[in-house]
Amino acid sequence: GRSKIVGAPMHDLLLWNHATVTTCHSKTVDLAAEVTQRNTSNTVLSAKRFLESHQAGKWNISYTRLNLRKPVPSDIVISRSCAAKSIDSLAREVGLFSDEVELYGKTKAKVQLTIIKRLQSLPDGKYVVVTGITPTPLGEGKSTTTIGLAQAMGAHMKLNVFACVRQPSQGPTFGIKGGAAGGGYSQVIPMEEFNLHLTGDIHAITAANNLVAAAVDARIFHEATQSDKALYNRLVPLSGGERTFSPIQINRLKKLGIQKTEPSALTEEEINRFARLDIDPSSVTWQRVLDTNDRFLRKITIGQSPTEKGYTREAQFDITVASEIMAVLALTSSLEDMRQRLAKMVVATSRRGDPITTEDLGVSGALTVLMKDAIKPNLMQTLEGTPVFVHAGPFANIAHGNSSILADKIALKLVGPEGFVVTEAGFGADIGMEKFFNIKCRYSGLRPHVVVLVATIRALKMHGGGPTVTAGMPLPKEYVEENFNLLEKGCNNMRKQIENAKHFGVPVVVAVNAFKTDTEAELDLVCTLAKSAGAFDAVRCSHWAEGGAGAVALGEAVQKASSAPSNFKFLYDLDLPIADKIRIIAQKIYGADDIELLPEAQHKVALYTKQGFANLPVCMAKTHLSLSHEAEKKGVPKGFILPIRDIRASVGAGFLFPLVGTMPTIPGLPTRPCFYDIDLDPETEQVNGLF
Amino acid sequence: GRSKIVGAPMHDLLLWNHATVTTCHSKTVDLAAEVTQRNTSNTVLSAKRFLESHQAGKWNISYTRLNLRKPVPSDIVISRSCAAKSIDSLAREVGLFSDEVELYGKTKAKVQLTIIKRLQSLPDGKYVVVTGITPTPLGEGKSTTTIGLAQAMGAHMKLNVFACVRQPSQGPTFGIKGGAAGGGYSQVIPMEEFNLHLTGDIHAITAANNLVAAAVDARIFHEATQSDKALYNRLVPLSGGERTFSPIQINRLKKLGIQKTEPSALTEEEINRFARLDIDPSSVTWQRVLDTNDRFLRKITIGQSPTEKGYTREAQFDITVASEIMAVLALTSSLEDMRQRLAKMVVATSRRGDPITTEDLGVSGALTVLMKDAIKPNLMQTLEGTPVFVHAGPFANIAHGNSSILADKIALKLVGPEGFVVTEAGFGADIGMEKFFNIKCRYSGLRPHVVVLVATIRALKMHGGGPTVTAGMPLPKEYVEENFNLLEKGCNNMRKQIENAKHFGVPVVVAVNAFKTDTEAELDLVCTLAKSAGAFDAVRCSHWAEGGAGAVALGEAVQKASSAPSNFKFLYDLDLPIADKIRIIAQKIYGADDIELLPEAQHKVALYTKQGFANLPVCMAKTHLSLSHEAEKKGVPKGFILPIRDIRASVGAGFLFPLVGTMPTIPGLPTRPCFYDIDLDPETEQVNGLF
Repeated sequence: GRSKIVGAPMHDLLLWNHATVTTCHSKTVDLAAEVTQRNTSNTVLSAKRFLESHQAGKWNISYTRLNLRKPVPSDIVISRSCAAKSIDSLAREVGLFSDEVELYGKTKAKVQLTIIKRLQSLPDGKYVVVTGITPTPLGEGKSTTTIGLAQAMGAHMKLNVFACVRQPSQGPTFGIKGGAAGGGYSQVIPMEEFNLHLTGDIHAITAANNLVAAAVDARIFHEATQSDKALYNRLVPLSGGERTFSPIQINRLKKLGIQKTEPSALTEEEINRFARLDIDPSSVTWQRVLDTNDRFLRKITIGQSPTEKGYTREAQFDITVASEIMAVLALTSSLEDMRQRLAKMVVATSRRGDPITTEDLGVSGALTVLMKDAIKPNLMQTLEGTPVFVHAGPFANIAHGNSSILADKIALKLVGPEGFVVTEAGFGADIGMEKFFNIKCRYSGLRPHVVVLVATIRALKMHGGGPTVTAGMPLPKEYVEENFNLLEKGCNNMRKQIENAKHFGVPVVVAVNAFKTDTEAELDLVCTLAKSAGAFDAVRCSHWAEGGAGAVALGEAVQKASSAPSNFKFLYDLDLPIADKIRIIAQKIYGADDIELLPEAQHKVALYTKQGFANLPVCMAKTHLSLSHEAEKKGVPKGFILPIRDIRASVGAGFLFPLVGTMPTIPGLPTRPCFYDIDLDPETEQVNGLF
Repeated sequence: GRSKIVGAPMHDLLLWNHATVTTCHSKTVDLAAEVTQRNTSNTVLSAKRFLESHQAGKWNISYTRLNLRKPVPSDIVISRSCAAKSIDSLAREVGLFSDEVELYGKTKAKVQLTIIKRLQSLPDGKYVVVTGITPTPLGEGKSTTTIGLAQAMGAHMKLNVFACVRQPSQGPTFGIKGGAAGGGYSQVIPMEEFNLHLTGDIHAITAANNLVAAAVDARIFHEATQSDKALYNRLVPLSGGERTFSPIQINRLKKLGIQKTEPSALTEEEINRFARLDIDPSSVTWQRVLDTNDRFLRKITIGQSPTEKGYTREAQFDITVASEIMAVLALTSSLEDMRQRLAKMVVATSRRGDPITTEDLGVSGALTVLMKDAIKPNLMQTLEGTPVFVHAGPFANIAHGNSSILADKIALKLVGPEGFVVTEAGFGADIGMEKFFNIKCRYSGLRPHVVVLVATIRALKMHGGGPTVTAGMPLPKEYVEENFNLLEKGCNNMRKQIENAKHFGVPVVVAVNAFKTDTEAELDLVCTLAKSAGAFDAVRCSHWAEGGAGAVALGEAVQKASSAPSNFKFLYDLDLPIADKIRIIAQKIYGADDIELLPEAQHKVALYTKQGFANLPVCMAKTHLSLSHEAEKKGVPKGFILPIRDIRASVGAGFLFPLVGTMPTIPGLPTRPCFYDIDLDPETEQVNGLF
């Protein structure tokens, strides 16, 4: 049978190389996809040969034509009215081999990391980061623009393009926020798959994170209730008459400077040092996590069952995406690198002042095993059939808020040198973009070509002093009627964020995400002011209502900007003292006069410097709602001193995070959570009520 | 292109109808699987026609030949030395259509429930339940026998056969127990996929369960801090100038007897009743869950953050498999039925004494959405290539401890009338089998043909009074040397468990799971005593060391027993008073003289009778280590009164569970958890240290 495969008929090969444009809502989409699918498996070898010779060229990809409706229906209605291409077809279209792809149902797939090696010698595509002005409750549409831009560059400009986005936390989906797959006619589909479970990466993080937490408290308990000898006998037990150290225990011995591998050879003092982590319970920084909006877990007391013999402790749960393991997933570059980062995570300090790691707890290997599938990027698609990687979603409040390095790297190889990867950074440019450059790009070694800065007329008006808005109430007239005064004042925030991008030497394209109430004159004003502030270009776009067709002008501007001269540089050197790195960000990006280290932060600067962590990059935990530390200060606040309350370390992920004020780390449910509207139709199996 | 598919070449069809026996460790396995895979997709239509005409006949299935080694290597070494068939090949081999299967990588797949409708008119196969004598620390090998029996009936007896097993909790995998995919040469593979995440069903339960928990406490909080009017305005908000009830709110109105659909029409009294669930915080029975062995969460105080304004409460976490949602998953028969069960779950009692459900909380639809994929059974395979459904794993301590009804039902259709489905019940026959009959079979309507009762010489000796054993120490000689005295005494436990099975009118085959230290005479004695106690047959088996070949005699006995006359009946009528149902189980199955309802249990009998839950079946929460309530009493305890401390209700799952003593509901980590040995090889991506 094997020779038959090698000689697979050419019509099969032609069939899937034929770029088909099919129509949404139409039955022919399904049939075409089926036809392609059925003819594929026995062309794998032929396809391999084809791909090897065409790797860097233009994809033969079929796009899905949108059937635009007005008024624009709800996100879930749009999402489910479009037939997604089968995900294995899409995988082939973008040059993935079938043995590099693990299907998760018909619409999601994981991509194996072996592809990195296969494509390592090929040149990268152009790297575009989407960021925004300082966020307001009125929304700017960063995710929607990321997806709309990819739809434009793919289906309309016929460029190879990948969007890379974060996986959303499931907690807010059932709380206040609802879905997060873009919106309108610029979405990742199926939106319910995107918003629920996906392929289980966040669940894997919950499991891994909480195994560490359980290990910390169980270890404190066992050390408190056992002699050195009993502890040692249990940690290195007799098995078949012999004692042996596990590899992870050998690592701990090495860290302690004990060069022995024979359990019976340890002195009593060495046994004591090996067996006792001697964790100071008040120093535990590792928290438990759940991907649920559960406000009652913000502060809890644990260990109150009689079986724990009175060793109670105050603790807390965070939302899973706030776990350091999520940040590790986003910043890692390989399985081996992830193994090392997961081992370096610091969970507490010993009574002697030493950092205690997951490797000391013996749990780092198990964490890697729990995360072995999560490390593979998830392939999905936009409404128009453009490929999307959905991978990692670190909490932007206390972590760096960017999707994974691995997804970006693989996408950059797949699109080839004439292609584009559009990736999104969380929050406004002062936070997500700054961290994208100083943390993500520093670890990845990738250099961005273009910054897209998203703004809306409404949000700019709020920065210009527009009134506050209340959910459920009609919008104040300032936002639905022409108002140059507020708009022009508000554009100062945009100007400052353009400057922020230019600090890094990368060209900026401003995307003005238009609403139907915006006037022509207002849109023109923003574009003019953006260009005068130093933007490479500024264009209006309407991808929410029109899909990729509404973002072609933006796509063209981005393509042009990607060839403009750029001179990327980091904002600070890692070798600078911790306080200096914080000060540079505060002054250059936020516009602060100076910073003030409060006593706890001063203590941590000393501790981390002593522990050897001072040369990590800095990941600011600041409100995203203002350039300053005070959320209510819109526009461009001046004359403030940025207070640093405390500093924490995510040593495995690889950053220090200074706390500016108090960051909520687990949301709550409102009186009427959005789950009231969410249900499944048992007949059609359709999800209703996600928006 | 379409006509080409309809005319798919016959050689493709022949290729996958050709039953191939390939050899473990051999490269040819991979190649053969690839060849089959490549030729398959374009034969889908032909295959459909083929399957439609051959549905009830014998499968054309390729089995994997084992390459047995002595001594038997570790489970993970065996598991990864065998090349699994690609799961889509296996799916085709057992008669599944490609559009009924959702692949999750190369070795796992979910089966869509649409198949139930397609096969509904076909006859069922034979239904075999595997149970055991009262468990001891020495192990009996129930899971291993379930898999070994399926391997024997499939690869060796050439019968259509499915094994249906529970998904293990991930917590113990990293705690004490290690993996749970059978063992030796009778395993579900890949064992690391089986033991970790699988397709995310347990994670979905964690998410759904904890959404309910968060909703309970958030609701208590919001009701405590708001007026009726404020609550109502938030629950039924103005949106676009209008107020509307969501469908789930209409359901609550109906339950309250309020026949109005217009929010403005409610009276103040009706608003009060609608908006206030008025949950008594001390009555909350819904607990949070994690799939982690975290002993410090056994008893906690929640709500201690200032944002919760002093509304603290004592609470606890259980292991996820103890969630009522897991029991619902195991007992449901369709998506619609699951939606209803998830809505009926009682989380607390109001101050007026009414049961408060998830439907009252408005969260039942969201739960169904979270569980929409978990409801689909997971297809995997044994070492020899037999199909296995892995689906649901309710905690046998406080739930019914059996895998899902849906998996059994689908498997019974797929094997056809001459085929067999081998399903496992948790714990010993007094618990798992009793619940299998009285709860699972009652809800499924399925009637079992054969009970397989597993016993080992070692465990029987312990029931006969053999010494206790200590981990890490050599076994006492009683267990490794011939000892008729202990063995004969211990067989009384087996005799009682045979009687227990015969109460239900089903033939019993005893499987004596042989160890190398067992003597011929000992094995003969057990078989003789089993038959004299009324077993249909009793045979020794050695599937742990030899795979299916070691269980052929068992398979033949089971096949013969399946044609024997059987007269299935339940042990009790649902209409009996709660106490009578408990007493019947205690007396007939456990051998108790009587039961004693302690005050809290008496109170619950009154409460549940008043609330209308008295006609549910009873799911005893009793130690599995003794027929009595005292774990240390081995053999056949006599002359005891069974104390019922309390009774709880799983109204959605559909049972009351009387608590006999205190049931631990979340395990802890020992001093040296098994995670010390678990690691991933970053080069080969192999998991090491699972056993």
